Amino acid sequence: MHWLMQRPVRLVPIGFGTTILIGTLVLMLPWATGQQRHTPFVTAFFTAASAVSVTGLAVVDTPNYWNDFGLVVITVLTQVGGLGILAGATLIILVVSHRLGLRNRLLVQAETAEFGLGDVRRLLFRIAAISLAVEATIAVILTLRLWVRYDYAFGEALWAGVFHAVQAFNNGGFALYTDGLIGLSSDAWLILPMAFGALIGGLGFPALFEAIRGWRHPAGWSVATKLTLWGSATLLIAGFLALLAAEWSNPYTLGIRPWPDKLLAAFAQNAFFRTGGFNVINIEALGEEGIPVIIALMFIGGGSASTAGGIKVSTFFLLAFVIWAELRGEPDVTVRHRRVATASQRQAVTVALLGVALVVAGTVTLILLTEGVPHHFALFEVTSAFSTAGLSLGLARDLPASGQIVLIALMYIGRVGSLTLGSALALNTRRRLYRYPEEQPLVG
Amino acid sequence: MHWLMQRPVRLVPIGFGTTILIGTLVLMLPWATGQQRHTPFVTAFFTAASAVSVTGLAVVDTPNYWNDFGLVVITVLTQVGGLGILAGATLIILVVSHRLGLRNRLLVQAETAEFGLGDVRRLLFRIAAISLAVEATIAVILTLRLWVRYDYAFGEALWAGVFHAVQAFNNGGFALYTDGLIGLSSDAWLILPMAFGALIGGLGFPALFEAIRGWRHPAGWSVATKLTLWGSATLLIAGFLALLAAEWSNPYTLGIRPWPDKLLAAFAQNAFFRTGGFNVINIEALGEEGIPVIIALMFIGGGSASTAGGIKVSTFFLLAFVIWAELRGEPDVTVRHRRVATASQRQAVTVALLGVALVVAGTVTLILLTEGVPHHFALFEVTSAFSTAGLSLGLARDLPASGQIVLIALMYIGRVGSLTLGSALALNTRRRLYRYPEEQPLVG
Ligand SMILES: [K+]
Ligand SMILES: [K+]
Repeated sequence: MHWLMQRPVRLVPIGFGTTILIGTLVLMLPWATGQQRHTPFVTAFFTAASAVSVTGLAVVDTPNYWNDFGLVVITVLTQVGGLGILAGATLIILVVSHRLGLRNRLLVQAETAEFGLGDVRRLLFRIAAISLAVEATIAVILTLRLWVRYDYAFGEALWAGVFHAVQAFNNGGFALYTDGLIGLSSDAWLILPMAFGALIGGLGFPALFEAIRGWRHPAGWSVATKLTLWGSATLLIAGFLALLAAEWSNPYTLGIRPWPDKLLAAFAQNAFFRTGGFNVINIEALGEEGIPVIIALMFIGGGSASTAGGIKVSTFFLLAFVIWAELRGEPDVTVRHRRVATASQRQAVTVALLGVALVVAGTVTLILLTEGVPHHFALFEVTSAFSTAGLSLGLARDLPASGQIVLIALMYIGRVGSLTLGSALALNTRRRLYRYPEEQPLVG
Repeated sequence: MHWLMQRPVRLVPIGFGTTILIGTLVLMLPWATGQQRHTPFVTAFFTAASAVSVTGLAVVDTPNYWNDFGLVVITVLTQVGGLGILAGATLIILVVSHRLGLRNRLLVQAETAEFGLGDVRRLLFRIAAISLAVEATIAVILTLRLWVRYDYAFGEALWAGVFHAVQAFNNGGFALYTDGLIGLSSDAWLILPMAFGALIGGLGFPALFEAIRGWRHPAGWSVATKLTLWGSATLLIAGFLALLAAEWSNPYTLGIRPWPDKLLAAFAQNAFFRTGGFNVINIEALGEEGIPVIIALMFIGGGSASTAGGIKVSTFFLLAFVIWAELRGEPDVTVRHRRVATASQRQAVTVALLGVALVVAGTVTLILLTEGVPHHFALFEVTSAFSTAGLSLGLARDLPASGQIVLIALMYIGRVGSLTLGSALALNTRRRLYRYPEEQPLVG
């Protein structure tokens, strides 16, 4: 098979690293700001890493700091990052399923054991085509709306439409407005396409393809797809209702809006929580009991092999099923009449607990590097970076360079790790020629 | 077998609940304060729950609010709680190992399959005897030191010695001084006996008995004992070094002490972190990067079937071994030439993640019930209550009654849950007459 297929797990970290470095160099050029000076290295590095990892955290005021060329660079980096994730993840899944001899639902002909390079090319082409089609659709709606309804010139409207369409689908999280999408938050024509774009990009193609192909028979979906789709639906509904309940009369967020606008803003903001990174309402003004909930949502993230980050919806809900089985005393962990392999259970535990360890270590490091920063601000920003979610309580830009580099490392690890860890774990199995005697220690 | 043996899992919550209620009623009496009024219900309830669950969180200034009778009541509640935990846990372990047909190392004759009520009585008697012997030893040393070296009358010295000995061994965490043990912190004759008492009580008898009986052959210890002892040693050494490094020149904690006193205070404080609940240095003055580390240590807690709380050292390190095996691609999780049953792995995951969920839910609730409380204060106090650790950043006493009741619930659930959950999970196994087809979803 082609060399690309042999080592996609190795290709991903190198590809992302290289793209970030190139982006950093370009963003440092005076052309990117229109000023007579170079952008400082850390600022350009942070912005490039944030764009390529489709996080959306910013250390400068995006629309005012960068000029049009700079914003085009950010758009390109986001697009390359997003497509890179989708393509890389798909390649990885194909290779892993092939090696493990799993049925592969990404390729229609996967019922046969072998797949060729032609199949893979076709699949990657299809992913790119669908991505661009979704982005084009969003861009057209946004452009028309901005042109017709607001006083944008056509060129301006087109630029804003394309920029936000790319950001939305790729879950990039950069916006052309200093206050994010708050100014647009009561216009359903603008907000809903972006929200749906973020949701589609954040579900990922494995789940989407299977759901679309098998929409008549949801019972026949794979366990991964069931966990991703039903789990995402659960989180969307629960988050929407919780956000409405908590913020209904908060004058700084939903309080002063008429009720249809409340519903719209709550729906969109909740859709953007786990990974989109746009703010539709003022995150810093949310009731403070909401902060831990958002941190949890960001940490969970979106679908596998999607532009979303976090430990993934399927990981989180698989662990819930493990606990449920354990509490009921079931010998097997079953999801809708399918037994889940213990290998998958151990992968889920590993992914989730390494994520926790990384977030805790990042938070402690950030607290060490700063002074007087509220701990939950540090935890929020670290989780946002690790999960490539991109929401911010405003801490990122106030950090010293060392703190920003911590966030850069988290964005990179969060992005590349979430792409490669699961598959590396799945592939990485040794054989033992002997087994040790078993013991059942009582824990807890 | 005796009915006690049939349902110890049910007996524990009822026993603890009843003891807390009786303690509440007694502490509400005017006799317990020497004042002309009743202690408010929530204050008495909190104090009784904190004493019986051997947490040590306080909502009043213990030595000044309660009179001698009140302090005797607290001592009795702590002693009953501590012995109740040790006896209840031992009973539970015996029943569980018996039912599961596991080798039982608490009873010497456990190599034979059956054990009688006589064996159990003897074991419980031995546990009570050893507990009282350790407490008496500590009490004698403390009493002599306070009497000879300080200007305590003999009666006073004896009372202070007994009080702190009971608190130390049972990991109770109440102290007779408003500033905890800070005033005594440079006297090794006072601090070290209490620190070792807390460590012994917090290791638990299953590990201690096995270690003492099999000290010549540590390789032959059970997996649970290996995890508990090596894990505790690891945490003690790492915590000690980290605390020294972080606080060496902080003038509010270790900074102004000569170096032997620094070592002493750091050793003792680190020993008390996970569960002892005494403060030897000013916790509120610790470098703020230390707070997340202490929260993690409290959450991990001590040994199984000990007076310590938390998810337990063995649970934490078993999960570390699961992750390590997964990262190395090992098909089995092995701890020193023993394969760990998947049942134990699932129990560990369940205990740890339910603990996380409870702490997160408790923190969000506390934030909802209060205003302007720093989130990490809420997280610290909730973790301290759930883990029955008893350290405080001072938030507990400033909480409204509703917030204090949340902490009471967490102390009760943390105590009773940590006693019963693991065993309930181990016992609670259903049989399936059929198995569903297996699937290996890719997660992460
Ligand atoms: K994002
Ligand atoms: K305690």
